[in-house]
Amino acid sequence: MAKEKKVEQITDMDVDFAQWFTDVVTKAELIDYSGVKGFFILRPYAYAIWENIQGILDNRFKELGHENVSMPVLIPESLLQKEKDHVEGFAPEVAWVTHGGSEELAERLCVRPTSETLFCDHWSHVLRSWRDLPMLYNQWCSVLRWEKTTRPFLRGREFHWQEGHTLHATKEEAELETQQMLNVYADFCENSLAMPVIKGQKTEKEKFAGAVSTYTVECMMHDKKALQGGTSHYFGDGFARAFDIQFTDRDNKLCYPHQTSWGMSTRIIGGLIMTHGDNSGLVLPPKIAPVQVMVIPIAMHKEGVLEKADALTARLKAGGLRVRIDKSEQSPGWKFAEHEMKGIPLRIELGPKDIENGQCVAVRRDNGEKITVGLSELEMKIPELLDAVQQGLYDKAKKNLTDNTRPALSLDEARGIISGKGGFVKTMWCGSLECEMKMKEDAGVSSRCIPFEQEHIGHSCIACGKPAEKMVIWGVAY
Amino acid sequence: MAKEKKVEQITDMDVDFAQWFTDVVTKAELIDYSGVKGFFILRPYAYAIWENIQGILDNRFKELGHENVSMPVLIPESLLQKEKDHVEGFAPEVAWVTHGGSEELAERLCVRPTSETLFCDHWSHVLRSWRDLPMLYNQWCSVLRWEKTTRPFLRGREFHWQEGHTLHATKEEAELETQQMLNVYADFCENSLAMPVIKGQKTEKEKFAGAVSTYTVECMMHDKKALQGGTSHYFGDGFARAFDIQFTDRDNKLCYPHQTSWGMSTRIIGGLIMTHGDNSGLVLPPKIAPVQVMVIPIAMHKEGVLEKADALTARLKAGGLRVRIDKSEQSPGWKFAEHEMKGIPLRIELGPKDIENGQCVAVRRDNGEKITVGLSELEMKIPELLDAVQQGLYDKAKKNLTDNTRPALSLDEARGIISGKGGFVKTMWCGSLECEMKMKEDAGVSSRCIPFEQEHIGHSCIACGKPAEKMVIWGVAY
Repeated sequence: MAKEKKVEQITDMDVDFAQWFTDVVTKAELIDYSGVKGFFILRPYAYAIWENIQGILDNRFKELGHENVSMPVLIPESLLQKEKDHVEGFAPEVAWVTHGGSEELAERLCVRPTSETLFCDHWSHVLRSWRDLPMLYNQWCSVLRWEKTTRPFLRGREFHWQEGHTLHATKEEAELETQQMLNVYADFCENSLAMPVIKGQKTEKEKFAGAVSTYTVECMMHDKKALQGGTSHYFGDGFARAFDIQFTDRDNKLCYPHQTSWGMSTRIIGGLIMTHGDNSGLVLPPKIAPVQVMVIPIAMHKEGVLEKADALTARLKAGGLRVRIDKSEQSPGWKFAEHEMKGIPLRIELGPKDIENGQCVAVRRDNGEKITVGLSELEMKIPELLDAVQQGLYDKAKKNLTDNTRPALSLDEARGIISGKGGFVKTMWCGSLECEMKMKEDAGVSSRCIPFEQEHIGHSCIACGKPAEKMVIWGVAY
Repeated sequence: MAKEKKVEQITDMDVDFAQWFTDVVTKAELIDYSGVKGFFILRPYAYAIWENIQGILDNRFKELGHENVSMPVLIPESLLQKEKDHVEGFAPEVAWVTHGGSEELAERLCVRPTSETLFCDHWSHVLRSWRDLPMLYNQWCSVLRWEKTTRPFLRGREFHWQEGHTLHATKEEAELETQQMLNVYADFCENSLAMPVIKGQKTEKEKFAGAVSTYTVECMMHDKKALQGGTSHYFGDGFARAFDIQFTDRDNKLCYPHQTSWGMSTRIIGGLIMTHGDNSGLVLPPKIAPVQVMVIPIAMHKEGVLEKADALTARLKAGGLRVRIDKSEQSPGWKFAEHEMKGIPLRIELGPKDIENGQCVAVRRDNGEKITVGLSELEMKIPELLDAVQQGLYDKAKKNLTDNTRPALSLDEARGIISGKGGFVKTMWCGSLECEMKMKEDAGVSSRCIPFEQEHIGHSCIACGKPAEKMVIWGVAY
């Protein structure tokens, strides 16, 4: 006989959000700690979420003409150093391979922190003419950055991501690509992950090492801190010049192409957890959940219950839903708690009484609502309920973002908001690094982005008082 | 106006097979050489083949209950050393990370050459009871092995693969899993890649470092050399004991679980090229080809041709085929050569005369046969032709394997076959390492496997003459 398993307890999210996060990622069986600091094992449930993310993004990338490739995992030091700004940004935080087998290497090799230099080196071999452009490449891989403080999903020394790298004949085409891919990320966050975003441009201080401009989608977590969801960079022809990548145009003239890169990582899973999770554990949007519906037979040893529960499961599967049935020898109460911890969007309870009445009971993970569903209308109602969960999660997160983004006209006001209610502040900014640093020192916030949707909340910079035309969103960031 | 591009020439495969291979992988745009010896760039066309391989295998693994996970890319030296035989096999050929950022690491970390030790470390954290078993895991990743001589696909310092790792309550279950996964590889090679295999067990000398037994599917290339297609290992409880992985069984007794691992790598793409390729380039089996049908409009500036060719392409796409149309400004002759180089299984030519006659001309890549197909029966005939190409490739490869596997009763005879016609020899063998080494020294062959399908071609060991019950297949291997 199976012993009743203990229902795992997690820390209250409003008491200690960081500990709540750690509890959720371990108790929901998303990660395990490896023997090396900052390297996390993605267990089957986490990897299944990542595979769903990959599936949706990869399809979208391919629809837009991108092709996947694989670049080496190691970069020679001399190659990393070819673009000055880029190496300054990355060299301090890479891992170095110095020995192969028993021999010391003539040149040390870093484990890739990002692959711009590898793509550029390849392009310098293969690009010939305008007919070869655009080159629209993407790579799914893991990268290493030797961070000091690490946390599962949010800051690892190794993380998984996709890195898109494209090459174009003109500045205009490259800039369009940069915007297009930012929009892919924004749509994906909002429509698949139910995470509302603010789209905008990064300041000079916050942009990617080596980029002309960096665009971002910024999200707000439950604790009102910011998380960068995905970024898209326009490089101009800086890398092309550094790596001597040229093509002959239609007039047979040698030109430098224009370049972009864009990426989204497993960090977004951390964002997903911190956006939707609650004190019962993980909450997953149906579009990304590995299991959308968990069927739980009640009094399952009573005659006919398991048979009917199996039939119900089969019907939902046939309808294209990701459904499982839990027939383990645990109590229904234990199962409810377990599948709540795992964030499964909908559970369906089916017992002898329900069968008698030709119905089942669906319970929404997002708000706990119980809905009686006639068995005859299962195929119509369950997808509707999943849509409602998806929308409910988005609406709640959107309200959190809207309610907690406040304008500030002075440093005092900004400081008051940040140290009080928290969240984002939006202010006018003159564009100087000095004033950006002042916001960090005085209010403890970094610039998240210069949103595309600008508001004219004032005329002068919050820090120096000089005329300012740009509105910036500031916040405390993960 | 576009200039006519030059049709690329490749070395004759019967003159210099190694150079032919190098020509094909570069001219068919499969790989590019990176700046680090032994690290190859998989260009879009090669990666698309790998994605098709991944898609078929991954589905099959999941149907059989396996789940994907992600383990770290780095392994601490102390962890690699926990299983004695394993570390002896791998330590001489790993790459070592010694610095992270600007600091020297207290313990050096190797870039994974394989992940048994990581899976074992994880299992020692999470395995509790018989209810947790079996654990059926798989990982898609790249691994590093610091080889001295390297060749694209066949021997790289980095290569992509999948590595399955499973844990079972009993020896019997683990052995069944080992056999099951070997059969998955055999089915995949034969049915998807059109590569006939010999299934069998590796000798003690050739088995995986740390395994109790290793099983293999062995293939024969066009030059009659052997290539190992995939391997499946049974570990017993050796790793479990070394890593202290235990579970409580139904009687609440602590037990060591039994373990397997199994892998197939991008090496199989090298095998695919060397099995089916010819002097016009790559030849891909339809089931794995990124593009199954290339439509080439003839006299495409004549009225109506492009329109009809587009319609034909759309019809085949709607039928679920992977079809492209080549509308570039090159001559049909150039296009024929280009798509032959890429190994596209079927090309369809459509010109004004064909349109007049309500037909098109399909040309098989495997044998050059031209088939006139009525446009009205397109959806029926083209899939049939693709099946015929798939079968044709398999039959040709099977004939090569059968015709070139010869029995030998003496070392002289074996040496004569190997230095003459080449291919595999099958002989009786007493089971001793000494006799296995003698075959290497005297005939220049290694044991490929002890086939499951045994034949009694004699009674005594080919090398020592002592009584022998096992038949072994020997060959020169990649």
